[in-house]
Formats: sequence, C-alpha cells, structure tokens
Amino acid sequence: MRAVRVVGYHRNLELTEVPKPEITGPHDVIVKIGGAGVCRTDLHILEGQWEPKTHVALPYTIGHENAGWVDAVGSAVTNVKVGDKVIMHPLITCGLCRACRFGDDVHCENSQFPGIDTEGGYADYLKTSARSVVKIDDSLEPADVAALADAGLTAYHAAAKAARKLRPGDRCVMIGAGGLGHIGIQVLKALSPADLIVVDRNPAALELAKSIGADITVVADGTEVQQILDITGGHGAEQVIDFVGEGGSTAKGLDMTRRAGDYHVVGYGENVDIATIDLISTERNIIGNLVGSYNDLVELMALAARGKVTLHTAKYRLDQFQDALDDLDAGKVRGRAILIP
Amino acid sequence: MRAVRVVGYHRNLELTEVPKPEITGPHDVIVKIGGAGVCRTDLHILEGQWEPKTHVALPYTIGHENAGWVDAVGSAVTNVKVGDKVIMHPLITCGLCRACRFGDDVHCENSQFPGIDTEGGYADYLKTSARSVVKIDDSLEPADVAALADAGLTAYHAAAKAARKLRPGDRCVMIGAGGLGHIGIQVLKALSPADLIVVDRNPAALELAKSIGADITVVADGTEVQQILDITGGHGAEQVIDFVGEGGSTAKGLDMTRRAGDYHVVGYGENVDIATIDLISTERNIIGNLVGSYNDLVELMALAARGKVTLHTAKYRLDQFQDALDDLDAGKVRGRAILIP
Amino acid sequence: MRAVRVVGYHRNLELTEVPKPEITGPHDVIVKIGGAGVCRTDLHILEGQWEPKTHVALPYTIGHENAGWVDAVGSAVTNVKVGDKVIMHPLITCGLCRACRFGDDVHCENSQFPGIDTEGGYADYLKTSARSVVKIDDSLEPADVAALADAGLTAYHAAAKAARKLRPGDRCVMIGAGGLGHIGIQVLKALSPADLIVVDRNPAALELAKSIGADITVVADGTEVQQILDITGGHGAEQVIDFVGEGGSTAKGLDMTRRAGDYHVVGYGENVDIATIDLISTERNIIGNLVGSYNDLVELMALAARGKVTLHTAKYRLDQFQDALDDLDAGKVRGRAILIP
Amino acid sequence: MRAVRVVGYHRNLELTEVPKPEITGPHDVIVKIGGAGVCRTDLHILEGQWEPKTHVALPYTIGHENAGWVDAVGSAVTNVKVGDKVIMHPLITCGLCRACRFGDDVHCENSQFPGIDTEGGYADYLKTSARSVVKIDDSLEPADVAALADAGLTAYHAAAKAARKLRPGDRCVMIGAGGLGHIGIQVLKALSPADLIVVDRNPAALELAKSIGADITVVADGTEVQQILDITGGHGAEQVIDFVGEGGSTAKGLDMTRRAGDYHVVGYGENVDIATIDLISTERNIIGNLVGSYNDLVELMALAARGKVTLHTAKYRLDQFQDALDDLDAGKVRGRAILIP
Repeated sequence: MRAVRVVGYHRNLELTEVPKPEITGPHDVIVKIGGAGVCRTDLHILEGQWEPKTHVALPYTIGHENAGWVDAVGSAVTNVKVGDKVIMHPLITCGLCRACRFGDDVHCENSQFPGIDTEGGYADYLKTSARSVVKIDDSLEPADVAALADAGLTAYHAAAKAARKLRPGDRCVMIGAGGLGHIGIQVLKALSPADLIVVDRNPAALELAKSIGADITVVADGTEVQQILDITGGHGAEQVIDFVGEGGSTAKGLDMTRRAGDYHVVGYGENVDIATIDLISTERNIIGNLVGSYNDLVELMALAARGKVTLHTAKYRLDQFQDALDDLDAGKVRGRAILIP
Repeated sequence: MRAVRVVGYHRNLELTEVPKPEITGPHDVIVKIGGAGVCRTDLHILEGQWEPKTHVALPYTIGHENAGWVDAVGSAVTNVKVGDKVIMHPLITCGLCRACRFGDDVHCENSQFPGIDTEGGYADYLKTSARSVVKIDDSLEPADVAALADAGLTAYHAAAKAARKLRPGDRCVMIGAGGLGHIGIQVLKALSPADLIVVDRNPAALELAKSIGADITVVADGTEVQQILDITGGHGAEQVIDFVGEGGSTAKGLDMTRRAGDYHVVGYGENVDIATIDLISTERNIIGNLVGSYNDLVELMALAARGKVTLHTAKYRLDQFQDALDDLDAGKVRGRAILIP
Repeated sequence: MRAVRVVGYHRNLELTEVPKPEITGPHDVIVKIGGAGVCRTDLHILEGQWEPKTHVALPYTIGHENAGWVDAVGSAVTNVKVGDKVIMHPLITCGLCRACRFGDDVHCENSQFPGIDTEGGYADYLKTSARSVVKIDDSLEPADVAALADAGLTAYHAAAKAARKLRPGDRCVMIGAGGLGHIGIQVLKALSPADLIVVDRNPAALELAKSIGADITVVADGTEVQQILDITGGHGAEQVIDFVGEGGSTAKGLDMTRRAGDYHVVGYGENVDIATIDLISTERNIIGNLVGSYNDLVELMALAARGKVTLHTAKYRLDQFQDALDDLDAGKVRGRAILIP
Repeated sequence: MRAVRVVGYHRNLELTEVPKPEITGPHDVIVKIGGAGVCRTDLHILEGQWEPKTHVALPYTIGHENAGWVDAVGSAVTNVKVGDKVIMHPLITCGLCRACRFGDDVHCENSQFPGIDTEGGYADYLKTSARSVVKIDDSLEPADVAALADAGLTAYHAAAKAARKLRPGDRCVMIGAGGLGHIGIQVLKALSPADLIVVDRNPAALELAKSIGADITVVADGTEVQQILDITGGHGAEQVIDFVGEGGSTAKGLDMTRRAGDYHVVGYGENVDIATIDLISTERNIIGNLVGSYNDLVELMALAARGKVTLHTAKYRLDQFQDALDDLDAGKVRGRAILIP
C-alpha cells in the first residue's frame, strides 16, 4: 500500500510502497483511511521539534487525525465490524491502568500516538486497536470529520467541562475564534444555554463566530477586559476558555473571570503568572485542558451526526500531500486540509 | 459594656465602656461573648494595613473570631434562641444575592465583616444576624472553639474540597503543618481515607502532625518534591493543599501534583508562575480557596462536637487583651490566644 | 384594594375591598400584581381539599402563581427596587434552616405558601419577602410569565435535574405532553443536546411537542414501551421523566429506563410498585421531584428572557375571575388562564 | 490440576482432575487460587436455580469469589506480573462498550461471570483477563480477602455511593447487620464522618456492629421507624441503606428517609410499593445498587490494606469442599467459609 513517510528531519516527506498492516492480535483493527487531517503539528515534526520527546525511529508514517472504514478486525473486537465508518481517537490506550478504567484514557500510562510515535494515517491503511475506533453515523463521511479527531476533540473537551458548570443566565467567554474556537463555539451552544461571548482580534473571525452561535462578540483591541466587565455587571464571566494562551491572554482571561469562576487554559505559549492573594481572595480556579477522552469523541460525533458541529475542509488526494503541506504553511487553507484516497 | 477598640493606627487598643447593642431588626441576634480569638490579622489592623481596603471609621471594636451565648433575638429568628451556645461565621451576609442563595455566602455581594469593617468581638456583647450564628453542641465551650471561626474554617473549606475528590488509595499532600495545617490534617483524616503526607521544615511540627493523623511526614529540606515523587511511584499526589504559598512552595506544590490532579492555594505571598504548556500537557488544576461558608462552619462544628477536631488555646481575660497581643507578637502563644469574659 | 377571597368551601369566591398591605419588616416587598395564574389547585381549594392540610383561616385571598411590579420595599431589601418587574417563587422561605442555606429552599422548615395558607395574588397587591421575588428581564411581561411560577417551575426542576446527567447521544423520554410536559420539552431542549422522545396518548399533543422541540414522538397506544425499546436498541433511555404518574405510567416508565438510568416521578396518582430484585439487578433509580427552588426560578426566567420557554395564556381581568374559573373547569382554556389588573 | 465441578443439579459437586488452563490471548491471566469463597449462591446453583438464566453446559467448575497469585500472563498484560497477589473482580468485561469505557463495568454489555456461567475458582488454577485482576497489598493474603470479591464489593459500592452525599452531622441508617452490613459498616465509617445508625433484629449482631464502628444501634422490634425519627429530630436520615429488602424493610426504610434523601436498595426479596405523591411531596429517591465496579474493588482493597475492613473467615482445604458447603447449609460457619489449596 501507499504511505507518506518521514525519512529525515528538514527534508520533505516521501510517498512509498509499504506492506499493508495485518491483524496479529484479538483487539487489532485495520482501517482503510478515508480522511487524514493535515495539521500544523505535521510541519513541526518535519522541523524535528518532536524528535527529542518521541525518539521515533525513521522512516515512519505521519498523520494523527484519521477516519475511514473498518477493513479487518481481530477475534475479540465487539464494538465495530468490517465496513463500519469510524473515526480514530488520537491515542491507542491500554484499558488497564487506573486512568483508562475511569474513562480518563488521555492519561493512560501506556499509550501510543499514531502519526507521532508510531505509524500514522497518511496512508491507504492504518492498524489501530478496538479501543481507539469510534463508529460514526451513516450520515457522516470520514473525510469530513477526520479533523475533529484531535483539534476538535480538544475544543470539545474544554467546552464540555465548562458547560457542566454553566446554568441559564451565566456567561461563558471564549478567547480566540480560530480553529479550536470555531469548534468550541458550536459545542458550547449545543451543550449549554449560557450566554457565549467570543473575543478575538479579527473582526472577520468574530463575524463567523456570530454566525455559528456566539451571542456577543468583543474585538480584542486592548479594552477587551473592560468590555467583558461592562457586559457582566462588573463581575466577569463564570467560565472563561482561553484558546490562545499567549500574547497576554492569560492575564486578561483571569481578569475576565468572576469570583469562584474557572479560567480554562487550552492554548499555550506564555506563562500563567498571578499573585496567590488574587487567587485566594476571589477563589478563582485555573483549569488545565488536554485533548478529550474516547468518550468525549463519541459525544462529539453524536453532535456532528445531529448537524450541531461542522467543519470547513479543503480536500487533497493522498499523492498531493506536498501541496496540502505547502498550502498550510503558506496560510492558504480555509478550514482544515484533509488527505483523501 | 466593655469593648476593646481601635482608636488610631500605630497606637495601642483601648478598653472603654460603650452602650450594649440592642435588637432593632427581626433577624438581629445579640451574643454575649464567651471567646474571641486573637489573630495576627489584629496586629496588621493596628499597623493600618487594612484601612485602605475597609475605610472603617474609628474608633471601632476589633475581634473577628467569636463565640458565645445568645443574649437576645429579633422577632424573625428561628434558628437559635436565648441561652444557646453559638459560634459566629466571620461574615454577615445578605441571604439575597445569587451566591448566598447557593450556599456560597463567602461570595456574598453585600457582606459585612465584624472586627474588620464593623463592630467586632473584643467586647462583652456583639450584635450580629441570625444568618451568622451556628448553634454548637452542648459538649463544646465557646472559648474552646472561637478560633475555628476564621482560620479553622479556611482549613476546613480547602480540606473538604480536596476530600470530595479523594478515594481510598489516593494521596493528599499538605504543605505546612502550622495553625491552618493543624486543623486541615484533622479535617482531612475525618473526611477521607486517603493517605495524608504532610510536608514542613520543622521536624517538631511534623511530630505533632503525625500525632493528629498524618500518615507520612516529609521534612522540607530541599528534596521534598523528590521525596513525594518517590512515595507516589513517580506520579505525585492527586490532591495537594498548600498552606504556605510563599518561599517557593507554589512551584514545589505544583511539581508534587499528579496528572489531572488539583493544587490548592490557601496560604499566600508569592506568585503562581507556570508555563501554560505544563498545565495543559498534564491537565493539572490550580484551585483558589477562601474562608469557608456558613454550611462549612456547621460541618466543622459537627466534627468538633465528635472530638475529631481540637485546638490548643491560651486564655486571657478581656482586660488582659494587651498581654495576649504582646505574647502573640513575641511568638509566645502555643496554639491560639483567646479572650474570655 | 380589591381581593378575590375564599369565604367558605363549596361556595364561589368573592371580590371585596381589603386594606392594601404595608411594609412592616426590613425584608418585606409589596408587589402590584400584573398576572395571577388560575390553576386547577384553586378549584380544589374551593372544594375544601386543602383545608385539612393548611387549616387556613377564612376569609383569605387565593392565587399562588404571581408576577407583577415592585410597589414598595423594606429597609434591608437589596435584590429588587420599586418599579422592578418580578415573578414570585411560590414559597416564602426562612433563609436560616439548612435546606435554605444550601439553596434547596423548597425543603425549608419554616415556609409559607401564599394563596394556599396565607394571602395570595388574586388581588391588586401582594405582600411577600425579598427572598421570594425574582427580577425578570425587561423583555418579559408579568402576565405572560406568571403561570411559570409553579407548574412551569416544577417542570423546569425535573428537566434540569435530568439534563445534568445527559450527554450527547443519550436519550430522554418524557411521558405526558400536557401543561408540565409542554414546559419540560422546551427546558430540556434548551439545556441538553440529548435526543428527546415524547410519549402521549393524544396525537395532537405530540404534534405540538414536535413543534417545540421533541425529536421523536410516540403514541401511547399500549405498545409504547416496545417502541421505546426499539428506538433505543433494546436498552431503554438514560433518563425518563414521567409527568403523568397514573394509569399505569409508572410501570411503563420504569420499563423504558435503561440500566443505571433514572426514572423521574413528577406527575402523581398511582403507586410505584416494583420488585427490589428488578431495581438492584439493573441498578435503576427512582427520583422524586418537587417544585423548583428560587435558583431554579431565576434560571427558568433566564430561559424565558432568551425566548427559549414560552406559554400560551388566556387573559381575564381580575373582576372576571369567575369566568376564568368556569372556563378552566369546563376545559375551555387553551394554555393557562391568567388574571390581569 | 484439581477442580470441583457441577456434574448435575440436585447432586453433590465432584472433585476431578482437569487440564490446567493455558494462556491463549494477549490479555489472559492464569491465577493460582489462594482462596475461593464459599457462598450461599453456590448452594442455589446446585439446586438448579441459576440454570434457566445461564444455560451453562455441565460439567463446569464453580466458585465466584476468588483470589490468589498470578501464575502466567499474556503478552499485552501490563497491570500485573507473575507472582503478584491478586483478587478477581467477579466479572470478565469487554473494555469496549460505553459502560466499560466510563468505569461502570458491571453494566458491561459483553461480560462473563466465572463460577456462574464459565469456569470458576474451586480449583488449583483459574483463567481470567487482565481487566479482572486487582493487585493486592503485600500485607494481605488471598485467603483472607477472597470473600470481599463479591458480597464485600456489593456492600462497598452502596456505602461509597451514600458516603459521597454525606457531610459531617448527617445521619446514615443501615438496615441489617449481617454479612453485607458487616462490611458496609466498616466502609462507611472509613469514608464518612456521618453518624451511623444500624438497625437489626438481633441484639448480638448490633453488639458486633457497635464494635466495628456503628455510632448508634436500634433493635428492630417494630418501633424502629419511630426510634429513627426520635434520634433524627423527626426528620429521618439523609441516607438509608437497606441490606435486607424483605419482611417489610422497604416501607420502613423509606419511612426512615429524610426529605430529599436517598433510600438505597441492596438486599432484595419484596416489592417497593409507595404512593407517587409520597415520593414527590418529599422528593425522596430510591436508589438501586448492584455489585461494585473494578475501581470499587481497587478501593476496597486499599481499605483492607490499611486495616479498615476485615472479615472473619473459616478455612477449608479444597478437598474439604463438601464440609464447607455442609457447614454453610447448617449455619455453622462464623464469618465466611474459604477454600484454600
């Protein structure tokens, strides 16, 4: 089969023929790839940024946002069957550690990350585990949802955590209406009746935010904290989700957070730096957020199947992988780039 | 009646005669003071540190940790009657704002703080509200529990919040085995079967910690983070409560916190300063903690009545207030200093 | 002022002149009535059904679903001011008992129930407490929301409790698409992305249910349990809310409930009668539901202000009270009958 | 190896030689049995009561409460290694269905039940899955904890669920101080500072209850409901756990339950039969309870390792199985009978 592989850092990927993976264990699942998301992380891998963390042996196949059709299953697989449309959770998890046993599988103590530290999805087929495949609704196509597998799942996880604490009349602020924010907005409006205020520097992004559910938009022009305080009667918002995490957004995000409220870190870059007395006198919380769990992905797919979360995609054939990466690097992709068979 | 009053900053308090307070509203409660805690905050008030925040008019009566006997009640008071032993929540709250309506009365939008911004308890009588008085068990004496009203309540609040997330086999670290830690240890062991590890610089404090419930003690000699990691199989603890909040304890406390765990800020002084990528990649949370609610105080008194939380106290008569303050300032008080009638 | 009063059982109500209520305590609030819901309970009061429970002294003013404008406030009232539009929680609660202190004020140990055991709202003015008035949005009119104060609040309470447990892809069944169900449907769809299946005997009621948010409707023709099992892959629904509670609906509702799911009793009449082995082997729960709390009413009004919950009303002037009651008794009222000034 | 097998209903078990099980899949675990609990269910199996549910093919090996030492592991097993002491969760679960993915594995859609519907633990060795083995502390012996695997786990599950809702000063009633109650008492006292009231007909059982943690005991002499009301100020208890479930205990248990409280069904036999109006007017809940999850068993073993839960056992060699069953049937076993190698 074909596979697009990392053959060296600071070099282009190469498309080569490799053996098709085979079922060797009872929980194995082989998926025929229908869509593989092209992500900025893929560019960083080629720059060698991930090598010190993963020590992955080259060559290997890249691609960590994958969806497709089940091609073969091991003898103990009960959750999917050949022909099912599936999306893959980014991690292959053990199912045995305490985190897995509680459904917090992103904290699995024995996980693999296809496309990052083992064979990924820029290929005709991918071998994964029954624990990683989520069956999707007949109405969805793998190429349309693949990019929800990682970035979308992160946005879902944070927005769902915030939504669990929000009640009618409460306010949620989202900082950043880019890729993650785009999904976060749709998720929050599906899960909660709270008023959603979206903050971004880009008026066009705010326009889009409004069209997909934002109740109020605020241009980040330096007065955004004051604007949020004005909108919330001087109190700030019960939940603040920061998809940016750099350029001063952490201090501003905390200033937008109401007493006893939560400030969620999703985007990253700078440090959170706040006086302990300011945290304790207001009893605010700073909440870390990683990618979502397998169950989160099931729920996100339920929303997608009901038309409540959609993505713009630009599709490229697998052999056009270099065009997709070049367009991404040049900022020419609207929505997400997806490789299709 | 007698009252010990602030007559000016950087001056000694003065004991004078003032009119005994009277019932004027239906929810008023007059309490005959049986014990008033002498707290380091009282020294700070005399240094003028609180004036910029409270703008309290002088002279006024100091004392914010109070307990005693109900002397008179307004017409609408149903929760206590004359003669009842009571402890007072530090705040007088409105009962009408959303925070009060949810039991989070420490976030009341219209509160008063006796001894800080209105008449306090270094006196024969104190006027408060039915919303602030907690009836205590017959087996308890006001002078023995008064100091639980503020410092103890803060420790209870944080320990109870952590305990709600702890399961058998989990670990809780407490940093600081001083006044708050002393209560926190007793509370945590009463509320949770988790293993409690106490960290302090002072071996004598750790000795005491062990005698009141700590399962493991760790001397903070610079290797404390590594010791915690060794004890927890390299993972860190599910819940970390920091009663210190200065001198580097925030960075260390976060380093002791397990993936998906909570680091609770209680003590304060320095800044929390952590890279956002370190928060999100581990999904740790930083939890602010203020003093407890009225309900928390009810629960703390239930523990005290069952002998599960006790305090050492050094008692002084009201007219010996200067000795109490001097001893406190000189570090001569073992446990808490209490003014009694 | 005018007031419509119970002057005896099995007799008509009488409209008479009575003194306008006055502020006597600091938390008193006088409301000029803008809408008073006419409820089937009012007919039952006249039949004497409530007398054995309340022993209310006659004559007294009826009417327990009230909204209007604040006319006067006591000295300690901070949550509303003269001129504010308000809806009244059905109970006047003490704010001092443990239930009130946790926000569960419907379980207040010292409550009054205007219109049932003290002066109600079929009048020009009503005296209540600051603890019972919820300020409503400028966009809402008292006469349009008054009927949400009791029946609507009950539906909100149950639907919100169920929604807290529902995740995308889960199913909620509601049995009964009448008055409470009508509100429950709108609330559930505002609070949760779960699939909502509504069961009723009346196809016209199901038509309406669909128009206000039901995803699937099922005619209760004797096969409704099997239909629910077919829709849910044989498992039943995670949450079942029964607004009927008689005519066999409790057994059917339990049969529709998935393993580890909740069956909510709201409507009442018959007994719940189920073998303990059937409860434990499936680990299903039977959840009681009373009217909502003050906080629930605040949240319901937030939904109403956002256009997410609406009611049909038929308005009558206060002096037409007899027509309203007669129409209600004769089944001629579409939606809810409301008395207006 | 030796195995004690069901060779026919209404016949004695027979000890025979069978092949030792072997590793065939990557998650397989072979356990050398160190203790197998002898349970009343085993007698019922021989009476043929379970055959209609399981249709298990004869002969097969009985025994569903098992603990021992790991003898061999499959290639993908990461949670235990050869030589580890382990206790086995009663079910072998799939790890793939939604219930398993949330940690609610007792609701697994594809489970097996060794000793009931597949080969059990009255034998020298048992084949199970990595998902079912819980490593136990060095200080514990398999024969001492085996009987906690099923009955003890059920008591843990219910008591832990109740404990999560209890706060200091609250009351928990347990009905029945027999086998399950004995564990439930120890668990509740380890997990919660609430006051524990134990009700039983047998004064000797109450004596024992007191020695292991009950705060108050009540003889079930027909006045037990009134006694509970007297103890709780007329309100009833916040949480009631019924380990009996027959002979009128469900009605009494509900009558002992406070407004907004939970009545937990654990024991079974009779029907729960209560008027819906009584449930809704008090907002009480009826909570079903099945055996605990794998995570529950991990937590119960953590309590056992800390000496907080202990069991009396009477040990018999495997070839004395008939004596053990005869003694159990004759009521001669104090505590639990355990087969050892």
